[in-house]
Amino acid sequence: MDGKILAFAGGVGGAKLALGLSLIIPPERLVICVNTGDDDSFHGLHVSPDLDTMMYTLAGLSDPQFGWGIQGDTFTALNMLKQYGADAWFNLGDRDFATHIRRTQLLGQGATLSQVTRELCESLGVRHTVIPMSDDSVRTVLGTPGGDLSMQEYFVRQRAEPVIQSITYVGAEAARPSPPLVSALNDAVLIVFCPSNPALSLGPILALPGVVDSLKTSPAMKIAVSPIVGGDAVKGPAGKIMAELGQEVSCVGIASLYKDFCDILVIDNQDSYLSPQIDDLGVRPVVDSIIMQSESDKVALAQSLIALSNG
Amino acid sequence: MDGKILAFAGGVGGAKLALGLSLIIPPERLVICVNTGDDDSFHGLHVSPDLDTMMYTLAGLSDPQFGWGIQGDTFTALNMLKQYGADAWFNLGDRDFATHIRRTQLLGQGATLSQVTRELCESLGVRHTVIPMSDDSVRTVLGTPGGDLSMQEYFVRQRAEPVIQSITYVGAEAARPSPPLVSALNDAVLIVFCPSNPALSLGPILALPGVVDSLKTSPAMKIAVSPIVGGDAVKGPAGKIMAELGQEVSCVGIASLYKDFCDILVIDNQDSYLSPQIDDLGVRPVVDSIIMQSESDKVALAQSLIALSNG
Repeated sequence: MDGKILAFAGGVGGAKLALGLSLIIPPERLVICVNTGDDDSFHGLHVSPDLDTMMYTLAGLSDPQFGWGIQGDTFTALNMLKQYGADAWFNLGDRDFATHIRRTQLLGQGATLSQVTRELCESLGVRHTVIPMSDDSVRTVLGTPGGDLSMQEYFVRQRAEPVIQSITYVGAEAARPSPPLVSALNDAVLIVFCPSNPALSLGPILALPGVVDSLKTSPAMKIAVSPIVGGDAVKGPAGKIMAELGQEVSCVGIASLYKDFCDILVIDNQDSYLSPQIDDLGVRPVVDSIIMQSESDKVALAQSLIALSNG
Repeated sequence: MDGKILAFAGGVGGAKLALGLSLIIPPERLVICVNTGDDDSFHGLHVSPDLDTMMYTLAGLSDPQFGWGIQGDTFTALNMLKQYGADAWFNLGDRDFATHIRRTQLLGQGATLSQVTRELCESLGVRHTVIPMSDDSVRTVLGTPGGDLSMQEYFVRQRAEPVIQSITYVGAEAARPSPPLVSALNDAVLIVFCPSNPALSLGPILALPGVVDSLKTSPAMKIAVSPIVGGDAVKGPAGKIMAELGQEVSCVGIASLYKDFCDILVIDNQDSYLSPQIDDLGVRPVVDSIIMQSESDKVALAQSLIALSNG
């Protein structure tokens, strides 16, 4: 297969498959579009958690234990900020701080998030193209019984414990897909939905004006990998959130969410019995081993997707 | 003696005497007004080198080897910023970065530099009052044969090597002395000019509208300590700069600069032979040991100043 591949991803889970794809696809053919609904301001600095997780993962810098941040990073600046009375519940290492300082400075000078992301990735030797979903502000706001929470407040500060009653992508209506996303949507022959949280990671991207329409009309093959295996998320609160939102917590629930624009849903071996229900939704189920632990798991799944797209 | 003491200071040299004063004067009686003409933006963060040197010195955090920064600080974030292609000639440690991040955030939220300085000092346990000379922007610009330089470009990047042809305090005309400086000028019974660089450290303060007039009319006793001993600066480029500006590089030159508002100039033992010339300028010379190395040197000089003010 030739032609460009566009992969949509959020943070840790999506970065696993993106890494697998990056290991078998040449840089000029792969564009990884990352959720920025989690972006937030900490200590006056612009933090893009999912973009950073993706960038650090592809640069070989990510911390395999935590999934976020840079392996071996120190927390000297954050500890000093605590001494200054700063609200320091969001962990930021010293090397990580440099990323946010640099990003904030360049944005302040008028660069777009797409431009800044390209510059940061190039500096770290990331050869594949990582792009933000939008250069405009979109913020995922979670309605809970205790009030509205930002993504990081919910996910980090409150450990994803509150019940989610509603999800709003604030700013999405007025936001535009980033220019490199628009190009990639036009050019792609294969579009991959990484196994990221549907509501929190892929939801903000799909909420951008025109994205779902582009997906529906795109001639590209569209393949999603289920983030739900055996009735719960492989990682993170995706299952809990789907249940709270009244969705079926299974790969069938995922197929329901993506059925309007998705050709194939790759589900795990243990969910193969659900294939007929997915088929009934108009999505072609493909059964595979989709839990990625080792690097070879990631490469194997990426290879399966490419093989599928080659028919 | 009762009543408030106001000390004017720049960075390292001034901080020595300020530390001496702080060790013998109760917190509620000492206000240390610091030059902000060196303030600059690095990586989009507001850096106040002299305020930080003073704060770190009084907090017991300063690096005795370099005079700037925090003892034992690490440079993890700066090294990462270098990897991102940032211009990183100005050394900033990880703990130091926290100071600039916090200051920039609070200023961005609308706090004044005076308010931010108070908050930072309180967090670090600095009990005496440290204030910026102004909450408005004043930037010392040095005219050199190679073009205009900011203070840090001149002092750090070019190691104080270029010939200085002119000094401009950009913004000084429109700037106001900080509210706590105005109060201290009104209240002080003793005003001390620490042995700081006259052009680069005290010059910006004296250039603020109304400061020299306040000094002239203030009933406080005004005592300067000469930064020049034996024909050169005790530390730094003050001697070289005075020569380049056509000033006499001696404590007599210092007396000439301060004679309009200064009652006493404390000069070093080795300069005692210059006393008559200082006297001729209308400034009372007092000979003492003014080179401060140990903490006891700093305390002894501070005690001498207090004794002088007590008559």
